[in-house]
Amino acid sequence: MYELGIVRRNIARAERAAVEKLSAFGVATVHEALGRVGLMKPYMRPIYAGAQVAGTAVTVLLHPGDNWMLHVAAEMIQPGDVVVAACTADCEDGFFGELLATSFRARGAVALIIDGGVRDVRDLTAMRFPVWSRAISAKGTIKATLGSVNIPVVCAGALVNPGDVIVADDDGVVVVPAALAAKTAEAAAAREASEAQKREQLAAGVLGLDMYKMREPLAKAGLRYVD
Amino acid sequence: MYELGIVRRNIARAERAAVEKLSAFGVATVHEALGRVGLMKPYMRPIYAGAQVAGTAVTVLLHPGDNWMLHVAAEMIQPGDVVVAACTADCEDGFFGELLATSFRARGAVALIIDGGVRDVRDLTAMRFPVWSRAISAKGTIKATLGSVNIPVVCAGALVNPGDVIVADDDGVVVVPAALAAKTAEAAAAREASEAQKREQLAAGVLGLDMYKMREPLAKAGLRYVD
Amino acid sequence: MYELGIVRRNIARAERAAVEKLSAFGVATVHEALGRVGLMKPYMRPIYAGAQVAGTAVTVLLHPGDNWMLHVAAEMIQPGDVVVAACTADCEDGFFGELLATSFRARGAVALIIDGGVRDVRDLTAMRFPVWSRAISAKGTIKATLGSVNIPVVCAGALVNPGDVIVADDDGVVVVPAALAAKTAEAAAAREASEAQKREQLAAGVLGLDMYKMREPLAKAGLRYVD
Amino acid sequence: MYELGIVRRNIARAERAAVEKLSAFGVATVHEALGRVGLMKPYMRPIYAGAQVAGTAVTVLLHPGDNWMLHVAAEMIQPGDVVVAACTADCEDGFFGELLATSFRARGAVALIIDGGVRDVRDLTAMRFPVWSRAISAKGTIKATLGSVNIPVVCAGALVNPGDVIVADDDGVVVVPAALAAKTAEAAAAREASEAQKREQLAAGVLGLDMYKMREPLAKAGLRYVD
Amino acid sequence: MYELGIVRRNIARAERAAVEKLSAFGVATVHEALGRVGLMKPYMRPIYAGAQVAGTAVTVLLHPGDNWMLHVAAEMIQPGDVVVAACTADCEDGFFGELLATSFRARGAVALIIDGGVRDVRDLTAMRFPVWSRAISAKGTIKATLGSVNIPVVCAGALVNPGDVIVADDDGVVVVPAALAAKTAEAAAAREASEAQKREQLAAGVLGLDMYKMREPLAKAGLRYVD
Amino acid sequence: MYELGIVRRNIARAERAAVEKLSAFGVATVHEALGRVGLMKPYMRPIYAGAQVAGTAVTVLLHPGDNWMLHVAAEMIQPGDVVVAACTADCEDGFFGELLATSFRARGAVALIIDGGVRDVRDLTAMRFPVWSRAISAKGTIKATLGSVNIPVVCAGALVNPGDVIVADDDGVVVVPAALAAKTAEAAAAREASEAQKREQLAAGVLGLDMYKMREPLAKAGLRYVD
Repeated sequence: MYELGIVRRNIARAERAAVEKLSAFGVATVHEALGRVGLMKPYMRPIYAGAQVAGTAVTVLLHPGDNWMLHVAAEMIQPGDVVVAACTADCEDGFFGELLATSFRARGAVALIIDGGVRDVRDLTAMRFPVWSRAISAKGTIKATLGSVNIPVVCAGALVNPGDVIVADDDGVVVVPAALAAKTAEAAAAREASEAQKREQLAAGVLGLDMYKMREPLAKAGLRYVD
Repeated sequence: MYELGIVRRNIARAERAAVEKLSAFGVATVHEALGRVGLMKPYMRPIYAGAQVAGTAVTVLLHPGDNWMLHVAAEMIQPGDVVVAACTADCEDGFFGELLATSFRARGAVALIIDGGVRDVRDLTAMRFPVWSRAISAKGTIKATLGSVNIPVVCAGALVNPGDVIVADDDGVVVVPAALAAKTAEAAAAREASEAQKREQLAAGVLGLDMYKMREPLAKAGLRYVD
Repeated sequence: MYELGIVRRNIARAERAAVEKLSAFGVATVHEALGRVGLMKPYMRPIYAGAQVAGTAVTVLLHPGDNWMLHVAAEMIQPGDVVVAACTADCEDGFFGELLATSFRARGAVALIIDGGVRDVRDLTAMRFPVWSRAISAKGTIKATLGSVNIPVVCAGALVNPGDVIVADDDGVVVVPAALAAKTAEAAAAREASEAQKREQLAAGVLGLDMYKMREPLAKAGLRYVD
Repeated sequence: MYELGIVRRNIARAERAAVEKLSAFGVATVHEALGRVGLMKPYMRPIYAGAQVAGTAVTVLLHPGDNWMLHVAAEMIQPGDVVVAACTADCEDGFFGELLATSFRARGAVALIIDGGVRDVRDLTAMRFPVWSRAISAKGTIKATLGSVNIPVVCAGALVNPGDVIVADDDGVVVVPAALAAKTAEAAAAREASEAQKREQLAAGVLGLDMYKMREPLAKAGLRYVD
Repeated sequence: MYELGIVRRNIARAERAAVEKLSAFGVATVHEALGRVGLMKPYMRPIYAGAQVAGTAVTVLLHPGDNWMLHVAAEMIQPGDVVVAACTADCEDGFFGELLATSFRARGAVALIIDGGVRDVRDLTAMRFPVWSRAISAKGTIKATLGSVNIPVVCAGALVNPGDVIVADDDGVVVVPAALAAKTAEAAAAREASEAQKREQLAAGVLGLDMYKMREPLAKAGLRYVD
Repeated sequence: MYELGIVRRNIARAERAAVEKLSAFGVATVHEALGRVGLMKPYMRPIYAGAQVAGTAVTVLLHPGDNWMLHVAAEMIQPGDVVVAACTADCEDGFFGELLATSFRARGAVALIIDGGVRDVRDLTAMRFPVWSRAISAKGTIKATLGSVNIPVVCAGALVNPGDVIVADDDGVVVVPAALAAKTAEAAAAREASEAQKREQLAAGVLGLDMYKMREPLAKAGLRYVD
């Protein structure tokens, strides 16, 4: 967070097995499994519907209007990584487009999460290179100022350490600390199993009021039914 | 509006026949037919394109970060209802997801209108359960505070009384008071009939200036043509 | 900018040949070719994905909640024009819908760019009449106040003179002054040619760091690699 | 809400005695006394700090960019009234300035609450005519479209019926239904009395944890203290 | 608008006499006198209340996060100028602070209008150097990219040509084209004279309805009074 | 960040001497001294002008609409602390008012930084208890959900660890990591010394262009002066 002009080469990525397990779950489930923390702000939206990814974070700190560090980050990408780009100030410029996506993909990146703008969204969609961003903008950027790569960053309100697991889908983006990845995957699996049962009951017309035994606490809280 | 902790069991729903008539028209038409009032703010957007619904309102007042009352509302749903959820303060949390949608649908609800966030949007889209919301967010909510069900609420800037007709499509959401439903449906039909004629003329190249006889009032207002 | 109640009949449109050349390029490319100026704000979004247009601007200055001048503008449209509507104050009302689109298309318009709201988006999508707007709203407007047609306007932060070339796609909207249209088209073509080569290299795994020879300037700027 | 072009002459104002009692309390206290409902959105800000008013609502429904109905409303003002102006769509134009304030004051109005913009704020401040608004804007408005006066309106997210009590200060604006005014004033007085005692204890260093007996419920909820 | 890297040395400033006349009027009055055009967006706010200035524009085009051109602009300032800074993309960084204000003032500048952020607002307030800006931010900027000085710019939605008159007060900022300065000052004076009479009548309790003879047009438009 | 329901009793506060040194500098200076990082978003504004504080952070993680943890935090306050409250989702409710301020002050707190709303701002101003917040709102909150105290939080986009130094003034809020406090204070002092010399030159009419020797790099970058 406090070092500009730094590129960290060796980062401790979350274990591949845990990432793969997490990739089976949606963001809402992972967020619950993690204890309702770690979500990016809801202004982060996918550029096309239906994408779902899980990968390990390579982090980047950008300056407004400057995408130099994305080129530096490209070299740090390993297969299965998700590039997570934060910015020192709110900026909707188009920091990333189809050429960088081609480069990132060639290095093995599976997605970009950027607290800024992107462009060439039609090409990116055609390539199926998923991006979650705060904006879409054709505006280009310069290459003049040093940020950093692979330092802790705050992206869209969430702290991301290099190597953390990023899970993203149509509901948004959640960050799972590398050390909690395996445990969170287990909790997500348990949650999903329990949801299957609930879904069946609810579909059959059972009320959540009864299934979750809410009638008593509601009455205690003072809920009154009137005609 | 001013009673927390209340669930009204019996509400006067708009007549089914009027609701069905209204379901044939788009929101823009209904809004015009109603006299250009009753629209929710344009930040209310459908989670997927192409949905169009009309139904009777079951209203809910939520607190930020708390979806307890949606479970209470489920029991009040009758076939053909649209659940309309307001919140005591702006909040983009994901109050509603696929499990609640399963329950609402089992009860007969045809849509949710919520001045808050929703999650599981991929699942909701797959289920074709339409939702109009102010945000999409994976963030879960708690069940701790009493709001109310079936009281008048202000949702996205529009007053909604239980039983009012809700019409929603890609253009947004409009509220038709139950007492005006039949009359509004008639006005909408008349409007649509008149639009068909206009459309034909405009498609043939006739100008609105001539068709609507605007040249004289424009000249009177002082419009000048220059070369 | 400073004349209300004026309609300019004769405007100098950019040459058709230049417009056609520009129509082959995306907004991001044109914006770069023009020297990174002339973009509208990124809040201007297409009502459906995949549209791409280039045309000559017929400009309109509206007042909030009043679409009278769009009818006046219709008469000024020539085949290949794009109507560009600015507003004297921020307003998200639905100034434009399917009837006006029918009329505009009959006159030869290929798109609408409006710093306001539009409605009937399902119909507009079905008609494939592309619109870039700041909002979608079912709210209708009145016909009471004189604005102007074919004067210079500021639309979504960009100055547009009548006759300028408008290029729009999923990335947004860019304005090319009529006098620069041919030159910009050439620059865009050159840029695109050079990008094809770069794309190939990047896809083969060459790093931008090497391809753009960034390593030396980065080191000079003080970038440090750590383990 | 659903009648345009209507001016209601006779409205049932809250009793003067209750309004006067309410005028002794801040908005936060009244809002609590009312059961935590009835607040306008926090974007409603006073044009100068330190104003505090309580009065009975004369309501106005405006259209974007049109302040005609404010002139109509002036005639309906009685001494002690607060004019509450809603708008059919979000609009930041300057609907109100020093001339209208002079007129409103001559009729006995004590404040304006407007979900729109105002201008002449230096003059209004010098006159000490308090206004709570969503914006400050020098932009003038026209007089062309009928809204209504003294119908129920939704202003900044709150339902206001003519005659309701409006209480406003630096914290915002709250609406007290006329029928609840006396009871709310009593509850506010009780609350304020109880707060005086609490304030003394807290100032002496007693913790809210102890004063409100929160330690047990916190422990029950699972709060853990670690070193 | 379309030339980056340009500094225009000689600009045609509005006549000093006209500027001085305009300095006697508030922004709302000037905006009306100009025909209700030329206003910047209402998000432009003064950093302290009570400032009022009129001066001739020296324009600057900045890039996000880069204030290099403000230093270039300093040399172009002549006594009585107002520096007007636009940015190629929305950015709230603190482009300007107390040191630059010291320099600008030494050159004779009377104010800064910036579609971006400023810092050192306490010092600027103590110096009584007035600034209208979109934000306050302590964040510093770099000096790396060429913009331009004294080209036409769009600042907060308004076109500003070098030499135009800028009038700013608590209500916002208005731009008067140099060629219209004298005429606008006259119209403003006439308007203010007429307002003095109206103010007196309104203060005496005369209604705008009668003074402006609105009763007949309102009745014609269909306004109905009910009890 | 990832532990809910935790209160950390012992935190390593930055050294008092460093905090005192930092208290002599404005936020803009400290932010520069720290290397242009660590700023909170500019939407964080003081509730009254002129406050300036430096203190050590006691951190709190809140849930939307729930201020329970502020009471828990009160017990952790030591003289000279600044309470920094983050929220798991954007919420503008009034989490804090005059009673809590009384309690915080009794414990020795010198300010509150809250990514949410506050109320009783007139009383807080009268008490001179400074608060930087994202909103002012009279809306009260509940006490139902466990957050945490003294864990790392992201507040208004900045990472804050318990014990870090918070510096806040009219320009905003900056976070100095405890370990960097002394060094940052030195850098700030050096910067301020150098600024005094520059200020004198600029006030005498020397241009930044010359003082900072920018003419050559500007020419190299291609800046052209035209008449």
